[in-house]
Amino acid sequence: MKTVGIVGANGYTGSELVRVLAFHPNVTLSFLYSRSNSGTKISDLYPDLGTVCEMVLTDTPEEVDILFLCLPHKESQNWLGQYSVKEETLVIDLGNDFRLEGNFGNRNFIYGLPEINKKNLLGVKSIANPGCFATAIQLALLPLAGKGLLKEVYTTGITGSTGAGQSLQATTHFTWRNDNISAYKTLAHQHVDEILLQLVELNNSEVNLHFVPWRGDFARGIFTSSTLKTELELSDIDQLYRNFYEDEPFVTVSSRAIDLKQVVNTNRCVIQIEKSGNVVVIHSAIDNLLKGASGQAVQNMNIAMGWEENLGLYLKPIAF
Amino acid sequence: MKTVGIVGANGYTGSELVRVLAFHPNVTLSFLYSRSNSGTKISDLYPDLGTVCEMVLTDTPEEVDILFLCLPHKESQNWLGQYSVKEETLVIDLGNDFRLEGNFGNRNFIYGLPEINKKNLLGVKSIANPGCFATAIQLALLPLAGKGLLKEVYTTGITGSTGAGQSLQATTHFTWRNDNISAYKTLAHQHVDEILLQLVELNNSEVNLHFVPWRGDFARGIFTSSTLKTELELSDIDQLYRNFYEDEPFVTVSSRAIDLKQVVNTNRCVIQIEKSGNVVVIHSAIDNLLKGASGQAVQNMNIAMGWEENLGLYLKPIAF
Amino acid sequence: MKTVGIVGANGYTGSELVRVLAFHPNVTLSFLYSRSNSGTKISDLYPDLGTVCEMVLTDTPEEVDILFLCLPHKESQNWLGQYSVKEETLVIDLGNDFRLEGNFGNRNFIYGLPEINKKNLLGVKSIANPGCFATAIQLALLPLAGKGLLKEVYTTGITGSTGAGQSLQATTHFTWRNDNISAYKTLAHQHVDEILLQLVELNNSEVNLHFVPWRGDFARGIFTSSTLKTELELSDIDQLYRNFYEDEPFVTVSSRAIDLKQVVNTNRCVIQIEKSGNVVVIHSAIDNLLKGASGQAVQNMNIAMGWEENLGLYLKPIAF
Amino acid sequence: MKTVGIVGANGYTGSELVRVLAFHPNVTLSFLYSRSNSGTKISDLYPDLGTVCEMVLTDTPEEVDILFLCLPHKESQNWLGQYSVKEETLVIDLGNDFRLEGNFGNRNFIYGLPEINKKNLLGVKSIANPGCFATAIQLALLPLAGKGLLKEVYTTGITGSTGAGQSLQATTHFTWRNDNISAYKTLAHQHVDEILLQLVELNNSEVNLHFVPWRGDFARGIFTSSTLKTELELSDIDQLYRNFYEDEPFVTVSSRAIDLKQVVNTNRCVIQIEKSGNVVVIHSAIDNLLKGASGQAVQNMNIAMGWEENLGLYLKPIAF
Repeated sequence: MKTVGIVGANGYTGSELVRVLAFHPNVTLSFLYSRSNSGTKISDLYPDLGTVCEMVLTDTPEEVDILFLCLPHKESQNWLGQYSVKEETLVIDLGNDFRLEGNFGNRNFIYGLPEINKKNLLGVKSIANPGCFATAIQLALLPLAGKGLLKEVYTTGITGSTGAGQSLQATTHFTWRNDNISAYKTLAHQHVDEILLQLVELNNSEVNLHFVPWRGDFARGIFTSSTLKTELELSDIDQLYRNFYEDEPFVTVSSRAIDLKQVVNTNRCVIQIEKSGNVVVIHSAIDNLLKGASGQAVQNMNIAMGWEENLGLYLKPIAF
Repeated sequence: MKTVGIVGANGYTGSELVRVLAFHPNVTLSFLYSRSNSGTKISDLYPDLGTVCEMVLTDTPEEVDILFLCLPHKESQNWLGQYSVKEETLVIDLGNDFRLEGNFGNRNFIYGLPEINKKNLLGVKSIANPGCFATAIQLALLPLAGKGLLKEVYTTGITGSTGAGQSLQATTHFTWRNDNISAYKTLAHQHVDEILLQLVELNNSEVNLHFVPWRGDFARGIFTSSTLKTELELSDIDQLYRNFYEDEPFVTVSSRAIDLKQVVNTNRCVIQIEKSGNVVVIHSAIDNLLKGASGQAVQNMNIAMGWEENLGLYLKPIAF
Repeated sequence: MKTVGIVGANGYTGSELVRVLAFHPNVTLSFLYSRSNSGTKISDLYPDLGTVCEMVLTDTPEEVDILFLCLPHKESQNWLGQYSVKEETLVIDLGNDFRLEGNFGNRNFIYGLPEINKKNLLGVKSIANPGCFATAIQLALLPLAGKGLLKEVYTTGITGSTGAGQSLQATTHFTWRNDNISAYKTLAHQHVDEILLQLVELNNSEVNLHFVPWRGDFARGIFTSSTLKTELELSDIDQLYRNFYEDEPFVTVSSRAIDLKQVVNTNRCVIQIEKSGNVVVIHSAIDNLLKGASGQAVQNMNIAMGWEENLGLYLKPIAF
Repeated sequence: MKTVGIVGANGYTGSELVRVLAFHPNVTLSFLYSRSNSGTKISDLYPDLGTVCEMVLTDTPEEVDILFLCLPHKESQNWLGQYSVKEETLVIDLGNDFRLEGNFGNRNFIYGLPEINKKNLLGVKSIANPGCFATAIQLALLPLAGKGLLKEVYTTGITGSTGAGQSLQATTHFTWRNDNISAYKTLAHQHVDEILLQLVELNNSEVNLHFVPWRGDFARGIFTSSTLKTELELSDIDQLYRNFYEDEPFVTVSSRAIDLKQVVNTNRCVIQIEKSGNVVVIHSAIDNLLKGASGQAVQNMNIAMGWEENLGLYLKPIAF
């Protein structure tokens, strides 16, 4: 059994990690760190954890084999600067501090999207876990990028309220958000740079991603549709995707209509491709807290540790 | 007081017309036609009408001054073929039978989008009321089309469940639709032809509209985002839109973020424009049953009859 | 035209009053008072008001014919203490400051539930508007109280998130409230005293009301079910209710199943009665912001001023 | 590994069993029976099962060790009459055919509420799985019944749309149900007899249960509040409940406010007790498809087979 610490366990992605890791056969939770809620039982913050985890949040981290950082932007760097973490500890950062620039001190964070970097992740000690929209959009575009077919991409994506975190905001107030749809950070979402960094390298030429994010009136999940031009036949694109994801346990290319709830409460991504004339649309759906955050972090841990990739990730879908 | 008949009053748009017209100062409801529900009180089908309208649905139409057709596709032609309607009766068709081809017998249906056709609507006797997505998308693009600036347009739109009508379907089952998002009719929505017919004429050159419709987990409303390239400055685009809609009582160009619930249960359309580099995004929102159907039908009636355009359309927003 | 001022116009009930009064034929809005948002346009806080009301919130009240107070508990007393209001001004308080004890200075607030107090409201200058749950529950029980038939009453009620006001709270966070149900203030809701004050007087003997309020995952509305024992036949109870509400324009006794959305965005209350053995259940539904607050306040204004009771209250239901 | 067959696998509770059993360490699925969908892959009906189960529905059952019946009322009897099931096969019926009368042919169905019948379930071959409301309400009342303290009980419960099954109905149409609340089967729900059969035996004297079920605007879950009179102190009641459920892995007595989402997508039941004067209210919450159906069926299987009670039931809560 490897020991695990979670920093920022009081937040959405931190507590979701607790939900997943509590039943993981190869790890045991050593500490849950939270500055603001130190001394509180995690199950008092999240009563759904009542019979799952009775640990008390602490502000005193211990030495562990695996450390997850679930902190606001910039805070991961601060935390690693403040506390000394053993070199041999696997650090997985769920924030965006090391996604664009992986070098930090004597650590070199590898971008943890298993569907492109799996081989590079085995045995590493520092992983930058991708963003939620970044995961959903990259998985929708990777196979085309792999063939250099991306140029101008028009993407709309919708996210659940958990994507905005647990802080109380006007746009997360139930009265406002229920039955409502709105756009935010139009053409200016922070994940675009992260996406392009990966796609451009694969695509081997410039990619323009015009991304319009929407806020949805649901709590969990991301659904995206990306539109672009290509002369490739639909059947060829379909085959390209099926080949690309052939060995990926969490990505399904569907020949039928997909919908968000097919993946909610799982670590899966489902993808559907449609075409008319020379225009192709790729839809993708993930659970933003799992494949878009904590589930993928566990997947990355499994890979880095040399364990079966979906260990602890056999999650019952909510389905309804 | 002018007399009004509603054909297909048992459906969503038909009953919504009853809700609006019941309080309209210039008209009185003469008959509500429904073949399938003949003999039933409209308030038994829609109990919210309990104190608003106690009429009984009939399968025997009468002569009226104004006739609204709220029927499934192709059924308007059949109905007008079966029953003889006086030449001087104003017929407003909410279906799509006459949107692309307005000539039918001795009638010539004018496309009833007041924001482009208001002058042509005064005094006419036949109006083809626009589709819901068609209204939201055209209002978002008209000012650019008016300057010939449209070429490649990428639009995503999301619609509430009322857009699918009252029939029971797998995709309108609550268990499936709650918290769910899905795409449908990707690049193949029937409103695209209707939209392009108007836009191309204004634009004076070819327009390609790549439209991805989504199903939303709410009952009322449409939200759309259209992305396209233009060298025009944001301030110039903004001014262009404000000038274009200056005299339109139901269209608001907003300089602040818009959201769907700003317009739900009203006949309004709100529009917001954002730009980054040479890419502009235009967001628009309407209530699909009002500005997207029955409200706009009343607006068209007001214009055709020479009445104040927003008579009977001072509707309290739901807001929350 | 009578002049109107709204104090606390920046809140939910205050802004809802603006939505209703903006289209009322006999009044004109003179000022919208808000200490915290003074200087802001009401339509910047509530963009749905974009074409309805362009007034700027002020912290300087003027003399008006009619004054609505939409303030947190205890604040109405403070406000009336701070500002001098003319004796002949009609003051309608939507808070709970004067519901249990109507005497304040030289004013004597009458409890404004028109279905029991209509005769006493004509011409008065001070009205205490009932609470939202208090309205829904009293309307469900009044006819039985009028016959002295109440003794032990077991009521469960569910309320939308607007009932909790616009402040950001853990229980109004979308992520928490979506798809969720919870109880609060079990057997201890502040409206019970207000309800009993009226019911006991009518009932002419002690009444015990055991009330369990629930939070619902919707924004608008209240649905209640009250269970009690009686030997009266269902048909007699039904007749009793129909007689009691015969002349009430906003209360409907339904012989068919009722549901919340029959009344959302209207000033109506619908009631249904069911019986098995010697146990009767009375269901009632209202819109908490309208019949439960701002709509009823306008109804009270109409009665006090001697106007038609439903003036300005012909509101289109949302229905869907 | 024991072999399992699921009859009615195409329905909500049947497919939910597939979701749970697919990851159960001691069983393997042998066949999924469905007359109407024979020949279809279960993952085509429920795409969330895409990577979980690729079995094809069949109309030809095989011999298995454990058989689950997930059929409409009366259909379990018919099915067992039509097909011969080995005597040594464990049959768990999720319908209500054998809850009130357990004798059928040479089988004697034991009522499978583990919290009262655990000792009687070990080794049995026929189990009648309780109803969803029946589970939530009994768990809320059992400890009081055990002391003979029940007399008049007033219960309101709210259920998600999955409780109504997958058939398309007016009351499961999204447009109708979204944001809506309604009562149904007032004082006449079919689970009352089932509940009283157990409670009266424990209580050793008559119990009257006045139950008002409501339809909620969410898909999964049941929340109930039961009100009754007792002279017992709150602390004594609380202790009584804690003692009663001390060894029950799936029932939690909470001293803090409970809410529905604490248990959604788990097999747990949470209970909270509140008191004022001589009136006590007991709240309970379960997931209707898990502790209210398929999860409890697996729990019963585990007990009957002599396995650990929560094997295969370590389910990640949805939480948000």
